[in-house]
Amino acid sequence: MLHITDAELDRFILDDAPHGDLTTRSLGLSGTPTVMVFRAGGALVASSTEEAARILARLGCTVTLNAASGTQAAAGDVLLSATGPADAILTGWKVAQTLVEYASGIATSAAGMVAAARAVRPDVVIACTRKTFPGTKAVAIKAIIAGGATPHRLGLSDSILLFPEHRALLGQTTLAEAISRLKRACPEKKVVVEVTSQDEAEAAAAAGADVIQLEKFTPAQTAEVTERVGPCGILIAAAGGVTAANAADYAQAGAAILVSSAPYSAPPVDVKVTISPQ
Amino acid sequence: MLHITDAELDRFILDDAPHGDLTTRSLGLSGTPTVMVFRAGGALVASSTEEAARILARLGCTVTLNAASGTQAAAGDVLLSATGPADAILTGWKVAQTLVEYASGIATSAAGMVAAARAVRPDVVIACTRKTFPGTKAVAIKAIIAGGATPHRLGLSDSILLFPEHRALLGQTTLAEAISRLKRACPEKKVVVEVTSQDEAEAAAAAGADVIQLEKFTPAQTAEVTERVGPCGILIAAAGGVTAANAADYAQAGAAILVSSAPYSAPPVDVKVTISPQ
Amino acid sequence: MLHITDAELDRFILDDAPHGDLTTRSLGLSGTPTVMVFRAGGALVASSTEEAARILARLGCTVTLNAASGTQAAAGDVLLSATGPADAILTGWKVAQTLVEYASGIATSAAGMVAAARAVRPDVVIACTRKTFPGTKAVAIKAIIAGGATPHRLGLSDSILLFPEHRALLGQTTLAEAISRLKRACPEKKVVVEVTSQDEAEAAAAAGADVIQLEKFTPAQTAEVTERVGPCGILIAAAGGVTAANAADYAQAGAAILVSSAPYSAPPVDVKVTISPQ
Amino acid sequence: MLHITDAELDRFILDDAPHGDLTTRSLGLSGTPTVMVFRAGGALVASSTEEAARILARLGCTVTLNAASGTQAAAGDVLLSATGPADAILTGWKVAQTLVEYASGIATSAAGMVAAARAVRPDVVIACTRKTFPGTKAVAIKAIIAGGATPHRLGLSDSILLFPEHRALLGQTTLAEAISRLKRACPEKKVVVEVTSQDEAEAAAAAGADVIQLEKFTPAQTAEVTERVGPCGILIAAAGGVTAANAADYAQAGAAILVSSAPYSAPPVDVKVTISPQ
Amino acid sequence: MLHITDAELDRFILDDAPHGDLTTRSLGLSGTPTVMVFRAGGALVASSTEEAARILARLGCTVTLNAASGTQAAAGDVLLSATGPADAILTGWKVAQTLVEYASGIATSAAGMVAAARAVRPDVVIACTRKTFPGTKAVAIKAIIAGGATPHRLGLSDSILLFPEHRALLGQTTLAEAISRLKRACPEKKVVVEVTSQDEAEAAAAAGADVIQLEKFTPAQTAEVTERVGPCGILIAAAGGVTAANAADYAQAGAAILVSSAPYSAPPVDVKVTISPQ
Amino acid sequence: MLHITDAELDRFILDDAPHGDLTTRSLGLSGTPTVMVFRAGGALVASSTEEAARILARLGCTVTLNAASGTQAAAGDVLLSATGPADAILTGWKVAQTLVEYASGIATSAAGMVAAARAVRPDVVIACTRKTFPGTKAVAIKAIIAGGATPHRLGLSDSILLFPEHRALLGQTTLAEAISRLKRACPEKKVVVEVTSQDEAEAAAAAGADVIQLEKFTPAQTAEVTERVGPCGILIAAAGGVTAANAADYAQAGAAILVSSAPYSAPPVDVKVTISPQ
Repeated sequence: MLHITDAELDRFILDDAPHGDLTTRSLGLSGTPTVMVFRAGGALVASSTEEAARILARLGCTVTLNAASGTQAAAGDVLLSATGPADAILTGWKVAQTLVEYASGIATSAAGMVAAARAVRPDVVIACTRKTFPGTKAVAIKAIIAGGATPHRLGLSDSILLFPEHRALLGQTTLAEAISRLKRACPEKKVVVEVTSQDEAEAAAAAGADVIQLEKFTPAQTAEVTERVGPCGILIAAAGGVTAANAADYAQAGAAILVSSAPYSAPPVDVKVTISPQ
Repeated sequence: MLHITDAELDRFILDDAPHGDLTTRSLGLSGTPTVMVFRAGGALVASSTEEAARILARLGCTVTLNAASGTQAAAGDVLLSATGPADAILTGWKVAQTLVEYASGIATSAAGMVAAARAVRPDVVIACTRKTFPGTKAVAIKAIIAGGATPHRLGLSDSILLFPEHRALLGQTTLAEAISRLKRACPEKKVVVEVTSQDEAEAAAAAGADVIQLEKFTPAQTAEVTERVGPCGILIAAAGGVTAANAADYAQAGAAILVSSAPYSAPPVDVKVTISPQ
Repeated sequence: MLHITDAELDRFILDDAPHGDLTTRSLGLSGTPTVMVFRAGGALVASSTEEAARILARLGCTVTLNAASGTQAAAGDVLLSATGPADAILTGWKVAQTLVEYASGIATSAAGMVAAARAVRPDVVIACTRKTFPGTKAVAIKAIIAGGATPHRLGLSDSILLFPEHRALLGQTTLAEAISRLKRACPEKKVVVEVTSQDEAEAAAAAGADVIQLEKFTPAQTAEVTERVGPCGILIAAAGGVTAANAADYAQAGAAILVSSAPYSAPPVDVKVTISPQ
Repeated sequence: MLHITDAELDRFILDDAPHGDLTTRSLGLSGTPTVMVFRAGGALVASSTEEAARILARLGCTVTLNAASGTQAAAGDVLLSATGPADAILTGWKVAQTLVEYASGIATSAAGMVAAARAVRPDVVIACTRKTFPGTKAVAIKAIIAGGATPHRLGLSDSILLFPEHRALLGQTTLAEAISRLKRACPEKKVVVEVTSQDEAEAAAAAGADVIQLEKFTPAQTAEVTERVGPCGILIAAAGGVTAANAADYAQAGAAILVSSAPYSAPPVDVKVTISPQ
Repeated sequence: MLHITDAELDRFILDDAPHGDLTTRSLGLSGTPTVMVFRAGGALVASSTEEAARILARLGCTVTLNAASGTQAAAGDVLLSATGPADAILTGWKVAQTLVEYASGIATSAAGMVAAARAVRPDVVIACTRKTFPGTKAVAIKAIIAGGATPHRLGLSDSILLFPEHRALLGQTTLAEAISRLKRACPEKKVVVEVTSQDEAEAAAAAGADVIQLEKFTPAQTAEVTERVGPCGILIAAAGGVTAANAADYAQAGAAILVSSAPYSAPPVDVKVTISPQ
Repeated sequence: MLHITDAELDRFILDDAPHGDLTTRSLGLSGTPTVMVFRAGGALVASSTEEAARILARLGCTVTLNAASGTQAAAGDVLLSATGPADAILTGWKVAQTLVEYASGIATSAAGMVAAARAVRPDVVIACTRKTFPGTKAVAIKAIIAGGATPHRLGLSDSILLFPEHRALLGQTTLAEAISRLKRACPEKKVVVEVTSQDEAEAAAAAGADVIQLEKFTPAQTAEVTERVGPCGILIAAAGGVTAANAADYAQAGAAILVSSAPYSAPPVDVKVTISPQ
């Protein structure tokens, strides 16, 4: 139940059609009974098909949803279909299509990364970052979940991630003291520490980090760190440049968590739309 | 003056930090005087640096903007810098960075397409579609303009584009009659007709279209149409799969307008951020 | 399908009844089953009856819509009727009535101008400006369309209109060069040029304007310009002080387009409301 | 201190210029230093000049406000002036101008009614109804106050007005009992009763109304009622068709309060704008 | 019909569950058919059960509302029940419960004050102030009405309350002149004057106040003022520190109106929730 | 840097003064230069004084902030002071005062609980729940942080808390399997398990919970659980009925975390306001 508000959907509609469809109206087609079908243009994991259906329903269409978010669809599979007067169908068409294309692009990308990594390590977790395109967060987070990934952290307010940038401001405070301070302040949170070198990784392990996030380590460097600190029960997360192409390598290297922003900028998938008289 | 509202910027902030930066607060660093610098990670065309600066200013930072939207920056060039207490700097950091990365990714992509096409035809226009990621329209349109492109149409309400999907609903009405109806209804608009075959292109030309939009034509097919209908003063627009890679080919083929959605899903560019005690 | 959002309708309700109807509640009538009927107080073209119906439905009434936007109604014709508990009916009453009165006032005014002008020139277009009362745009644009007019331009972002105020800033740039620059930048747009004298009109024609907008010309002056530049296929738009009273004169004078803001400030029409126990 | 929010002003801007001024941008004039002056086109009472100034300031202009809301201006008087780059000036121009024209039209109309009525009865109050054009309430209420009028009631939630429509639902309850119930429930409010005949007026007086609102009485009928019930200390309000033209007659007839919606649909006044290079 | 918008309810949902219920999703329970029942944890007056039902319905639950706002419930009484997939039920659970607990806490507190005061004076009015917790006004006002109280004033714009703070700014203007000015300006409003001493109360009475609001008077002091000025038909309101505990004393002392903010900060009542497989 | 938006502050203002201060305007005092000072009415921990200052500044006052959020103030200490025209001062007065009173009430309550608990166990954490009054979350979370507490969880989307209600839906799945599933799905989160009996507590410990939340245990029962499972490194959180009065007992009993909603419904503290001519 990832709730996307009516106000958000109305904004999507008005961004594209603040005052209706000029062409359809000028052609005198507004009331023509029309049917529209969305089909997968290729293999994809659907996302935001519910929101696409709601957009069309808000405009007065009758909609059947065939592929809920998370559904794997093959080329030609029907995702949803709608009937209504031409102006309702055509006003909602591209907004709904574009939403499904972008959201399913993210879901499909996330699913590809999950599949690649789990082929070699079935319990690995793909955790997507908070670096969504500003303005798209609700849709993007729903999409990575549809694809089998999970949010790394939703934002700054809900979790502890000690960046090198924090450490630069700590002055005389040691890393151990900083981690200890974080644990005292937030006993219900795990302390994640991002590091950029093997030495830092070991220092973080020694200082009590729960999770060590390796920023831009190669799979080989990741394997080395995992060997050393993994046995202590400290989780290793690989971050920075993790993609579907190298996810298996990082999983193989022992990272329990693959942190990635890549799905958010995945290209939209192709959704084929047919529109015809009813 | 592409106005992006304070409410939009506040939304970006709250999407990431609804209740502040837990890590910085727990470390006791909130008030530490801090300086942050954004630098281009590679060659890029900047966009939404103004909005990034405003985000940081809203949080209480003092900001210097070095590279306005539309500026070409080389790797290492400073885009903006900010000073303020650590919690203000760190709360705004990733929101501002991510915004600039996505927006400049779009601007850089658009600029690349413009440069490629104009190298062979200096007066060609790159017109980006209305297929922005829902929720990003203001930022995305600003970005393609920063990159030298122009909006193809802002949405359904402002322009005439006769799709094959409209024609499917016209019943006995001929294309000529449809175009005539559009011209009578909207004398201040050009009539753009999208076609999917050469025959349709010629029919549209004969029927009085002002612009013929060729959907998924090859450059060779485009050249053929241009030769036939171009001399009549009808503008040819190439659409569907136009990218930086083939933009020059379409321009060479005689298309006056290259219609593309590609920049909107360009990957974010890299912005390097350094944070240090002031 | 001119989509007016639920949030907009809720705003209309709360502007008038932020915390319910004090009188009805204090009388102890809240639950009394009630019926309300809206009738045209005189001949009118209905507009925003759909939104009035939705306002009442949001408050819990059951509504029947009898006269959709665009319907010509005679005095006494039922526009809509609603049943529900008295507090729902009375909370929605004036908001819904006032909305229909203002919107239908605009639609009726626009329709009057259309009828007057088309009596002498059946293909003339009444194009209403962007000068709506701030805060009313969605309702006002829907209303002029209901009355048979069309938007001149929705705003600054979607079309080209070269004002004398632009020309004042052009410095050494000639009008011909300015128009040429606009055509190169926006090949999919017609270039409209506003002029305030006959000389300027001819200069604009010579410089390649697609549409020449005559600001505050008399019908006689309009006829003169039309005779000279109309034959070249350049469209003439009359603007500035065009009203229902003189619309036929301008149409007769050869203006293809009558640009007017007058309908937006038309007085509200009279809607008669009866409320009785159910 | 009638507070109109930044969000409202941003909405006005975006309704007209969601993505900037296409013409100015295409002409390459965006950065040209420009000065703009607003002058009264005729005698007027200014309103929402503060909001116009804020709109221009939000877009980056430097603004001088010369005529605050409530100022009486003669033709040619400067209302405000602004300097800034051409795209900021031209993006804000019509939005700011249109706002001042509509708001000052309301203020000027209200002021005219106040002046007419007070010429014969200096303590008469012009009370404007809640029937504002939906979406304009904050601006419209500010404007009638600028013109010297006062809100009759802000809406349904804040005051007691017993309509004939309420009485139709009262069943066996007498008017006296209804008024008594209202007084018990709302001891801090005056009870206003709207009547449509002289008999009803006398009944309302006998039943204890504090204010009797005469709906569509002629001045002569108003005088008769005033003579009979006025001496009891009951206030008489004239409502329904009260305009500047007959306000003096109603005031003369003894109405203490003139209730009118007329100013809300007053035509916009003329504001002359000049734009030139700085 | 106190209208609380969908946008407000969506805000409540998103404040608690911006991206769904992580625990339920991670357990794989999202689709499990589930039933949830809300029962009164003790005697209470229900409020905002309608909004709780709408929250659950927005998330996809099927809801039965058993106790509308204003209903007196005993411990164990069912307030509402809902069925739906576990993720919808569990996402809405605490938001809906918390809303009913706070709102019913206010309603129950107001009802207690009403009952206490009316036991000794059946026509006394409990008028709650405008000092609601910022952000809760719609819910809080609905709740005090559900409890049998009424709003004292909704805010600054709708009524006349002359504070000592106003008097401090009046300079040479006497209280009588100030009250006279208020009556001339607002003939449809009663003039309420807040006083802090018996002398001020008598001065206000002499100066023509309609209602005298005694700020922080003891019941004994209240009785004294009532004896002196009450017989003149001036209403006495007791304010400042009025609670359920002393309400009867103030009513006994002759105050016609008890002005209180106490219900707004009443502790939430207990609502018992049971959740089980369907 | 807990960012509270301008839109939120404008909403607070408009909820109270949608169209200005009728009394001040009617008295003719609008422009009178005025000074206002906020002082602590008793010992308190200030919160949202920044927002109060911003509210006054938005209305045109000049404000000095003396006591930032988190400051401990004694009776009589100045919190903030403002100067401006009377209508600005009086329009913002109660909104700003009420906000500081509620927010500081929460902060002071939280601080009291922190002090009580830390007197016996210096490293105990007071974690406030997500059960804020709907509509107040940003202010309430800022306030508990100002008081030295921390959010327990911000909502459903950011953390793992296995309720008995979840377990009721698990069917055949054992608790151990459920916890294991949660750890696999969310390796970066601690798993918190709420229990209602000692047996459940031991079962949760055995099943691998990171934190065991004891719902409505007495301090004695809490101590027993702590003795048994605490030595295993499992954290004990006491929840359900924890208040300032018993916080020390629970801390003494060994709970590392005290989970409480009590501060959110703490009564507003008293802020004394003086207003005088400048």
